[in-house]
Amino acid sequence: MKGKLYMGLDIGGSKISAALVDIRGQMSLLRRQSTPPDGKLAQELLIEMGQSLLDQTAVSPATVVGVGIGFGGPVDYRNQRIRGSHHTEGWEVNLPLAQEVGEALGLPVRLDNDANTAGLGEALFGAGKGKERVLYINVGTGIGGALVRNQQVYHGAHCHAGEIGHMILQKDGPLCACGHHGCLEPLASGTAMGQAAVRALDENPKLDTRLKDYPREEISGVLVSDLALEGDELSRSIIAQAADWLGLAAANACNVWDPDAVIIGGGVSGAGDTLMEPFCRAFRGYAAPPANEKTDLYLAKLGYDAGVVGAAALALTTM
Amino acid sequence: MKGKLYMGLDIGGSKISAALVDIRGQMSLLRRQSTPPDGKLAQELLIEMGQSLLDQTAVSPATVVGVGIGFGGPVDYRNQRIRGSHHTEGWEVNLPLAQEVGEALGLPVRLDNDANTAGLGEALFGAGKGKERVLYINVGTGIGGALVRNQQVYHGAHCHAGEIGHMILQKDGPLCACGHHGCLEPLASGTAMGQAAVRALDENPKLDTRLKDYPREEISGVLVSDLALEGDELSRSIIAQAADWLGLAAANACNVWDPDAVIIGGGVSGAGDTLMEPFCRAFRGYAAPPANEKTDLYLAKLGYDAGVVGAAALALTTM
Repeated sequence: MKGKLYMGLDIGGSKISAALVDIRGQMSLLRRQSTPPDGKLAQELLIEMGQSLLDQTAVSPATVVGVGIGFGGPVDYRNQRIRGSHHTEGWEVNLPLAQEVGEALGLPVRLDNDANTAGLGEALFGAGKGKERVLYINVGTGIGGALVRNQQVYHGAHCHAGEIGHMILQKDGPLCACGHHGCLEPLASGTAMGQAAVRALDENPKLDTRLKDYPREEISGVLVSDLALEGDELSRSIIAQAADWLGLAAANACNVWDPDAVIIGGGVSGAGDTLMEPFCRAFRGYAAPPANEKTDLYLAKLGYDAGVVGAAALALTTM
Repeated sequence: MKGKLYMGLDIGGSKISAALVDIRGQMSLLRRQSTPPDGKLAQELLIEMGQSLLDQTAVSPATVVGVGIGFGGPVDYRNQRIRGSHHTEGWEVNLPLAQEVGEALGLPVRLDNDANTAGLGEALFGAGKGKERVLYINVGTGIGGALVRNQQVYHGAHCHAGEIGHMILQKDGPLCACGHHGCLEPLASGTAMGQAAVRALDENPKLDTRLKDYPREEISGVLVSDLALEGDELSRSIIAQAADWLGLAAANACNVWDPDAVIIGGGVSGAGDTLMEPFCRAFRGYAAPPANEKTDLYLAKLGYDAGVVGAAALALTTM
């Protein structure tokens, strides 16, 4: 290790990841640990993991310039505070997490939500490399998104930009966790895919599908996308239906912000072409000219690492 | 007249407007003429109207710095060409209109579509004055829109940003002129309001409404909004329904771009509170926090003049 390095810390619902990343996006010393079920404990572990990375660079000629944190929940970017967590209990509302981690590690820290950091990672070092305007859509348990322009996340007036999961596509559609009906999230998230699979099995127990081999509580979006990849028909049709809604949401977003490229990432993007083929078809069909033909559509390239690489990229692009 | 002036030329489907505007948005020498039913003739008239304004400033101490054109159809802003017209026949596709008008008038010319120029006018001198990010929605015969940030129109990658009229809100909804189903335009434009009125009268000829006093071919969005203002119940309910869709589209757009303010303009905005009350209620209901409470919602202030003032503002902010 040598030269300037940036530390990425990514706090997800199940894992905390930490790594050092250089100015070309090369990652080193990646660490992953389970997220403790309490905010205070998670913050302690985060600092411990960061300190351990610093200890390992202490005797090397490398310099750690600063730290970026990607947080799995809404963030008040302007005030560098978390607004709360969707996944983990015990995170204090309005906690100045950047300041506290910065004081503990003795380094400048910048905090953003994890969809924004993953989008930044993909825009800088992944599928969006070289594109001026990137719309990133993260399809995981929920659906998040990010608008990245000229290598900077665009936050909007209320740090609410890119919240594409709550775009309403069907006024009388399924109930979303946010209380509205017909948001993209309950139509196309990993959770929605898992629920669609369970519903299909309940409605027709004779269906010929490998999903029957799994207990209901293990049926998730990731399982559906894994089985779709292996050719399971029911899984493929569930993915295709979600991809159609994703294509519609992306087309609508392009009618507003008109990016050069749309990138689909997150856990469910592991389905690859099984997801991207119906997504691209839907997007080309729903979008208006000239965006329908000219917008580039990509699957994310960094996979699970987008979070931690993107968190480091946040430090890299703002310090 | 004295000091620096900017010429605004606005080419709508029915009228061509021309005026001079100073740096504070004050308009002088406003002229309006009917749009000739042919692109070549329209261009000639445009140049004639511009020249006549120049002639009148020739002996004054004022200087006309440049010309902005707002065009009623899709514009390739980057190449300063029109892509075609939705309203008027005979406009050559890819016509370099800015260059041709510039050569004729001997001044620098900047061209944009009329929703973008009207949005710029409202953002600089109208309801959006002082706001960093303004989403402007123009509800007229069709529905256009503009994203204005820091007094500049944001065009996006393919000069397609702000095309909110083609946001799809109801997959199996009414057919749009663009060929898709369920775009905002066939749900909430002036044309859609007129059609909804005719449909209601056809379905129930006994309805108690002043709309019955008009021949079907005179029933337009502007008539519906005029009668709504005067208390006609059917007209009010048609406006309210369109306003609900507009509120949904605006909420979705805020989940993408998160502006400080949303402004509703265009011919139908003459309905005032009759439109804005259900619009605001819908927006507050459909948008996600914190944008649902914090985004400012305004009726346009410049009225019909937004087009010509905004065209001049285009010159003002780019020259």
